[in-house]
Amino acid sequence: MKAEMIVFSGSSHPGLAERVAQRLGKPLGKSHSVKFTNENIMVRIGDNCREKDVFVIQTSSTPVNDHLVELLIFLDAIKYASAGRVTAVIPYFPYCRSDKKDEPRISVAARLMADLIQTSGAARVLTMNLHSPQIQGFFRIPVDQLLAAPIFFEYFDRVLFKEERKEDFVLVMSDAGAAKAFGYYSDELKLPVAIIDKFRPDHSEKPIIRQVIGDVRGKACLIIDDEIASGGTLIEAAEKLAEEGAKRVLAAAVHPVLSGNAVERLVKSPIERIIVGDTVPVRDKIQGHEDRFEVLDLSPLFARAIECIHDGASLSELFPPSVRRRH
Amino acid sequence: MKAEMIVFSGSSHPGLAERVAQRLGKPLGKSHSVKFTNENIMVRIGDNCREKDVFVIQTSSTPVNDHLVELLIFLDAIKYASAGRVTAVIPYFPYCRSDKKDEPRISVAARLMADLIQTSGAARVLTMNLHSPQIQGFFRIPVDQLLAAPIFFEYFDRVLFKEERKEDFVLVMSDAGAAKAFGYYSDELKLPVAIIDKFRPDHSEKPIIRQVIGDVRGKACLIIDDEIASGGTLIEAAEKLAEEGAKRVLAAAVHPVLSGNAVERLVKSPIERIIVGDTVPVRDKIQGHEDRFEVLDLSPLFARAIECIHDGASLSELFPPSVRRRH
Amino acid sequence: MKAEMIVFSGSSHPGLAERVAQRLGKPLGKSHSVKFTNENIMVRIGDNCREKDVFVIQTSSTPVNDHLVELLIFLDAIKYASAGRVTAVIPYFPYCRSDKKDEPRISVAARLMADLIQTSGAARVLTMNLHSPQIQGFFRIPVDQLLAAPIFFEYFDRVLFKEERKEDFVLVMSDAGAAKAFGYYSDELKLPVAIIDKFRPDHSEKPIIRQVIGDVRGKACLIIDDEIASGGTLIEAAEKLAEEGAKRVLAAAVHPVLSGNAVERLVKSPIERIIVGDTVPVRDKIQGHEDRFEVLDLSPLFARAIECIHDGASLSELFPPSVRRRH
Amino acid sequence: MKAEMIVFSGSSHPGLAERVAQRLGKPLGKSHSVKFTNENIMVRIGDNCREKDVFVIQTSSTPVNDHLVELLIFLDAIKYASAGRVTAVIPYFPYCRSDKKDEPRISVAARLMADLIQTSGAARVLTMNLHSPQIQGFFRIPVDQLLAAPIFFEYFDRVLFKEERKEDFVLVMSDAGAAKAFGYYSDELKLPVAIIDKFRPDHSEKPIIRQVIGDVRGKACLIIDDEIASGGTLIEAAEKLAEEGAKRVLAAAVHPVLSGNAVERLVKSPIERIIVGDTVPVRDKIQGHEDRFEVLDLSPLFARAIECIHDGASLSELFPPSVRRRH
Amino acid sequence: MKAEMIVFSGSSHPGLAERVAQRLGKPLGKSHSVKFTNENIMVRIGDNCREKDVFVIQTSSTPVNDHLVELLIFLDAIKYASAGRVTAVIPYFPYCRSDKKDEPRISVAARLMADLIQTSGAARVLTMNLHSPQIQGFFRIPVDQLLAAPIFFEYFDRVLFKEERKEDFVLVMSDAGAAKAFGYYSDELKLPVAIIDKFRPDHSEKPIIRQVIGDVRGKACLIIDDEIASGGTLIEAAEKLAEEGAKRVLAAAVHPVLSGNAVERLVKSPIERIIVGDTVPVRDKIQGHEDRFEVLDLSPLFARAIECIHDGASLSELFPPSVRRRH
Amino acid sequence: MKAEMIVFSGSSHPGLAERVAQRLGKPLGKSHSVKFTNENIMVRIGDNCREKDVFVIQTSSTPVNDHLVELLIFLDAIKYASAGRVTAVIPYFPYCRSDKKDEPRISVAARLMADLIQTSGAARVLTMNLHSPQIQGFFRIPVDQLLAAPIFFEYFDRVLFKEERKEDFVLVMSDAGAAKAFGYYSDELKLPVAIIDKFRPDHSEKPIIRQVIGDVRGKACLIIDDEIASGGTLIEAAEKLAEEGAKRVLAAAVHPVLSGNAVERLVKSPIERIIVGDTVPVRDKIQGHEDRFEVLDLSPLFARAIECIHDGASLSELFPPSVRRRH
Repeated sequence: MKAEMIVFSGSSHPGLAERVAQRLGKPLGKSHSVKFTNENIMVRIGDNCREKDVFVIQTSSTPVNDHLVELLIFLDAIKYASAGRVTAVIPYFPYCRSDKKDEPRISVAARLMADLIQTSGAARVLTMNLHSPQIQGFFRIPVDQLLAAPIFFEYFDRVLFKEERKEDFVLVMSDAGAAKAFGYYSDELKLPVAIIDKFRPDHSEKPIIRQVIGDVRGKACLIIDDEIASGGTLIEAAEKLAEEGAKRVLAAAVHPVLSGNAVERLVKSPIERIIVGDTVPVRDKIQGHEDRFEVLDLSPLFARAIECIHDGASLSELFPPSVRRRH
Repeated sequence: MKAEMIVFSGSSHPGLAERVAQRLGKPLGKSHSVKFTNENIMVRIGDNCREKDVFVIQTSSTPVNDHLVELLIFLDAIKYASAGRVTAVIPYFPYCRSDKKDEPRISVAARLMADLIQTSGAARVLTMNLHSPQIQGFFRIPVDQLLAAPIFFEYFDRVLFKEERKEDFVLVMSDAGAAKAFGYYSDELKLPVAIIDKFRPDHSEKPIIRQVIGDVRGKACLIIDDEIASGGTLIEAAEKLAEEGAKRVLAAAVHPVLSGNAVERLVKSPIERIIVGDTVPVRDKIQGHEDRFEVLDLSPLFARAIECIHDGASLSELFPPSVRRRH
Repeated sequence: MKAEMIVFSGSSHPGLAERVAQRLGKPLGKSHSVKFTNENIMVRIGDNCREKDVFVIQTSSTPVNDHLVELLIFLDAIKYASAGRVTAVIPYFPYCRSDKKDEPRISVAARLMADLIQTSGAARVLTMNLHSPQIQGFFRIPVDQLLAAPIFFEYFDRVLFKEERKEDFVLVMSDAGAAKAFGYYSDELKLPVAIIDKFRPDHSEKPIIRQVIGDVRGKACLIIDDEIASGGTLIEAAEKLAEEGAKRVLAAAVHPVLSGNAVERLVKSPIERIIVGDTVPVRDKIQGHEDRFEVLDLSPLFARAIECIHDGASLSELFPPSVRRRH
Repeated sequence: MKAEMIVFSGSSHPGLAERVAQRLGKPLGKSHSVKFTNENIMVRIGDNCREKDVFVIQTSSTPVNDHLVELLIFLDAIKYASAGRVTAVIPYFPYCRSDKKDEPRISVAARLMADLIQTSGAARVLTMNLHSPQIQGFFRIPVDQLLAAPIFFEYFDRVLFKEERKEDFVLVMSDAGAAKAFGYYSDELKLPVAIIDKFRPDHSEKPIIRQVIGDVRGKACLIIDDEIASGGTLIEAAEKLAEEGAKRVLAAAVHPVLSGNAVERLVKSPIERIIVGDTVPVRDKIQGHEDRFEVLDLSPLFARAIECIHDGASLSELFPPSVRRRH
Repeated sequence: MKAEMIVFSGSSHPGLAERVAQRLGKPLGKSHSVKFTNENIMVRIGDNCREKDVFVIQTSSTPVNDHLVELLIFLDAIKYASAGRVTAVIPYFPYCRSDKKDEPRISVAARLMADLIQTSGAARVLTMNLHSPQIQGFFRIPVDQLLAAPIFFEYFDRVLFKEERKEDFVLVMSDAGAAKAFGYYSDELKLPVAIIDKFRPDHSEKPIIRQVIGDVRGKACLIIDDEIASGGTLIEAAEKLAEEGAKRVLAAAVHPVLSGNAVERLVKSPIERIIVGDTVPVRDKIQGHEDRFEVLDLSPLFARAIECIHDGASLSELFPPSVRRRH
Repeated sequence: MKAEMIVFSGSSHPGLAERVAQRLGKPLGKSHSVKFTNENIMVRIGDNCREKDVFVIQTSSTPVNDHLVELLIFLDAIKYASAGRVTAVIPYFPYCRSDKKDEPRISVAARLMADLIQTSGAARVLTMNLHSPQIQGFFRIPVDQLLAAPIFFEYFDRVLFKEERKEDFVLVMSDAGAAKAFGYYSDELKLPVAIIDKFRPDHSEKPIIRQVIGDVRGKACLIIDDEIASGGTLIEAAEKLAEEGAKRVLAAAVHPVLSGNAVERLVKSPIERIIVGDTVPVRDKIQGHEDRFEVLDLSPLFARAIECIHDGASLSELFPPSVRRRH
């Protein structure tokens, strides 16, 4: 767009927004969110937005529903302030695990989120590593989905594969669907793969591990997933891998949700190191355990994507080669 | 509708929902809301809703944004469960004070709420005493707005006007706009009126009282408003009335939001008794001060309105006579 | 918008449109409205509108419904003529008094008007002093609501407060809701306030005056309202004020609808002078009584607002300071 | 629909509505339209409409735009009064001649009317003899278009073809497009056809007659069209036919708009008799000239169609056989 | 639009698209349509489209439904590729003969096509000689309808009226509605007119010719229509004209659909020459019979219209004078 | 719905539609699809549909795009024929493999299909085994997705596990994502699992098999997938399994697309038996090879689901127990 760009931050992740703004070389737009004593949120926009190309950065971090409602109010305020275009920048998409109707009479809440975000005025969405790629199809507006893979791969090359020969690594998916969502790791890294095979016994809601499919003995196992929430699945997988003779167990995930007492449980697990993105605020949560976590700064991808969107340039350069090649 | 009626309750105000269901002579529909450790809300509907005439009762009570999101997810689940029609029953409407754009670049959040509720699948709304009657116009679906007045009037007649001669009462509006929203009190009760005249001095956001317009000396002053939030406005008015020689000060309000330390402040104020509806849960908040509060059960109005909506009957009987007469 | 601006005038108020165009320094766009013998209106647009930033000025003046339909046809013609953006400039909004459902089974016609105007292709609306500020929420497109207050205040300072000491004035609202709609007069002018207290006796549709709340004896009373339609309410208020010992009675209103025989009745009333805006054509109606009316030219506000909208500049400068300050 | 039927009449053609209601064997629903001194129309619905199957009869008669706006307000009031379904019964469709963009930058106003009627809440439309059949495609709701032909044919058989041998008649179309719109007359009546061939000379907006194509000498010429507005086209055609040796000239048209001084001009023309429907009120207009006009009562078609729509029965029986057969 | 223009071609008519691109002086955008073995079509867009002013050229040629679906997928891909604006350039509009509901319970498929094209993301449409001009009203987006007439007229002047005196020509419409759709031929050419009068006998779906209305004996008859599909109607008309003593019979039509064995049948008919546009690929079909067909290159009109749309310039220059003059 | 049910069949799979109708105990509705010589499809509905509960059965079989367009026209015809509700019954959903944007600038065509089907008038969809469960979220109307699993399981129990001990079977997924889509086979059957691990070498679009993860030696391998298109993936998997020492190789898939020369290639492969559903017509394709294919009749599931939808009954009984249990 020829219009001037202006980037606002909601209150969910000011740190990431600041870093994105710095990379863009311009200050964040002035805005002020208040939560009154009656818990109603009000967003005051301090800068004129008329005809501007506006970006609102808000992730799905705790308190999740407050941040969601703040995002909707923010978008609405911007729209009626006559912005030329509003892009919702949502590093970690809310309710993304609720992407299908696998029980009767439930909401596909990720789809509802798409509806609410559009209703509130977003003309585009920029997000990262959706739990399933089909979520893009829940929108009727253009969605750019970034993949964190390039930054993770760079870390693997720079650090992991220096610590140990690449040939000694095996990629582990904690369940059958996980690999796809994380983004084509296997193709790109050319590493062997193992899968944690789970099943649900009768009358049970919780799946249990049956076996590890693939060879892990004596290997450095790198478990990959799109997010770590309570950490339960991950820890069980790590314990199974240790049991099966893995030399080392590491984990990598884009979205460090780390809900409940996830951090305490993870530090007691056999996982040596947990490599995560910063799509949700994580520094406070891991305080005291920084040695076990590696937090990768994903702001370069967001900043560059915002520039491309604003300039009408292709985002292709931001993706790993295998994605562009693939059908 | 010829279809069967089924009434569900969200988790915001189970007490009111139970009383409504009892009056309707049928149990609440089975549903289960969970909030996972990642704070995502999931609503499971236990009863078949296909083709049914479904009512979902959810008010705007604390935690406000969680209850809002739960309502949206609930409506969405019901819609995609193939309900014949979904009516959102919202005793206290969320963000209702945010009904106009009195600052630049803010959201008219009550209008956004209307949009979100429609997007999520509501085909109708049943609510009570909107902060301004124009909020009905924010919807593109039929909205029935109940007025709590008949139940308040019944209490005034049964209790207040027994304690003291009706002629000794004066109605007090805490600001110029309040009277209208509460619903035609003055016409119906045929009481004299006084108004608290406020203004905003330079460079101030907070209005201060200039004078009481109307005669209150030696009178029993009944301050009326649609809601009590922090209670600040109400307490200032009461103190001014006491100062001006009022004999007694009482207050009546439909929605007992009572946010922050409102209860503690109110019990220290000159207000002898506070008469409120039960559109939000209030029993816990006023614990230990039940002598200063009178909570009126509004469930009969909601139950009767749901019956009328279901049967396609007119709701006129539920309104005070002056409303039907008036233009 | 970078696109070229073009301003058209419907046939409702060519005088105002001309003055607006002059201030913008460009001629009105060529257009031609005809009403055939079968009463069908046809609008022919003479200028190419492709990609342009188009403004259509049409107010709600007599014949009201013809002008409304002409506006809708005008907007439609412009939209399908591939305009880049169409802004409906509606100085006096049609059906604005019909903003709530205060009777069963009536249309909230102001909301319907919002729907019709959007359906016909308006991308934005520019209007002035809506009867209630919530009407903005009836739209799903950005609405800029101008307030005539700055031009009225300028007149008060320049003329009224020269004739008489400001301290001798009192502002009078002809009913409880009027003050808000007219726009924060009281805060800005720092004048004392009086209110005409009305009620509806049993079995009556028409409210009657009970009392004047506040002190008016010996004062110069300035009755303010958003519009004067039949003038009935205003005249009754003026007579009551005179009866209560007011020294002088004046009136100010933005929209001089002056329907039926309003002018004849007003000139026989105790109102010394009536100060009105020119959002509807008024010169012909007051012919012969120019001494009793003061018509303020509001075209500077519309011209400046159109410039700001076109340039993407903030409209804040056009509002009285109290509006920007206030919540 | 299983729901109860209720039929309302706007103020455009109470006579027709009454006759329809009588044939349906039930009184018209209670409603009251007022036009205030400010020309705003208000419609009060007196009967409960919840869940009902509502029909609103409103034609496009003078004052055309007032009746249009009244229709929109009526539909809106019914919709928000929670009707089960609203069918707009529009005997003569407004702005139906404006059905294509034959000039640059004009509105296809018939399409705009379709939009406005849908926006205002109509779920279906019932109309008669649209100027062009494509107008049905302007709607996104089901439209039933009645053809008046069966009632006209019955009159021709009963009266015309008794006065004179059918073989002596020739059907005349006043322009090339007319025949189709009037409804398959030629197929059904099996009469020869003549066409008035017109062209537009340079620099002229008005077409002039070049010739009569087909044989009319010594014939009884029956000119057919869908409507008579100012009558100009019809009178010119009649004069030309007389000039070419026609024995008699008669005319038939469904919609007797008869605008301006059409009646006076028609009675001075060579047209012996004008046979019209009653889709717009016509009795007052032709007063004093009843001998020259034959008004056919079309209410049986409307009443029967309303019954069919209500009962979910096919309307096929109401059409001439050739329509059902045809592609 | 200020944005860069990019023109793509679907696979329906690459020849026309190439010629349009050449006239625009820029290569076609890179795109690739594949039809997999499961018959699913996939469109890959090779050029960045963000913010661009995109035109997609796709006509309705055989295989008709594949080309339709390819168009919809193409538009969708472009929309979600963040194009600034997408214009569907559809030289011959699909399903255009299905423009009215002349049988019960059929689809007005041309209207459905309009819906589908909009749903798939088109912001504008550019097309040519719609079967009926009302089809424009089926859209809720701006539609530019070109008329091929100027290029046909140029050919008539340059070739036909050199071969024979213009006075010896008569225009023939093959049915009553044809003339209008082809575009004002009669006004422009100032030629006499004859019409083929058809009727449907009882129990028959197929109309048969009753007579030729107008004088054709010894004349050069130029039959005009908007399209030639199976050619049946045209051939019957030609035979009738020959029978009635026409000296020569020629035909002109914009869209050479030429379905089934139309070409073989036409070359056996009395039609001496058939002048057609190239809105659908025709060269292959007429191979071996080039002497009987004259194919006019319409790409100049499309190229110029695309330029005008892109530049926001009026298209008026592209129309014959009579169109602009006319109402 | 209380309304009468009527089931129509498009021309894509009359056999399945007939069997569904027989199970429902009522004849198919009368309809007639024609494809004219110009390839335009026309659908004539022979039965009155007003207020009825209409089901249209149309699958995505060859010719795929013709059947798609026929479905859209069918739905549109039914909608405008005033049906009470239209359910599109689509056994094999068109373009279902195109469910994500795994290349830049492509259409998520399955989402576009959802849009088109809704635009054309479907109020509900009934389908089976979507390629990914997220496709449900592409709709804004209720979608019932049947799983063929119960009928496949019944066959496995009745036939397969009689031929060989269940313990000797292993389930094989031909790629990581396949298992989920086919529907919880593993949980239900309690069989061990093996996965074909594939990767894409550099500069290649086609993935190649790296290894079989899991133990298959001496086992009866049952490869499961949602559909068999060209069969390539399946055949490669089967060959690899044979190579790895599988005792037997069988395959099961719901949708037997069998495009191109799939059948010939499959019969030459090591796959002993291929068990498929009949969601697309398959009998003709496998002619001569009936011994290698087992076609399961899925019509009982569709018939029962239609009954449940019509009666407003829950469809839960139609699903395998694990689905209802699971989250």
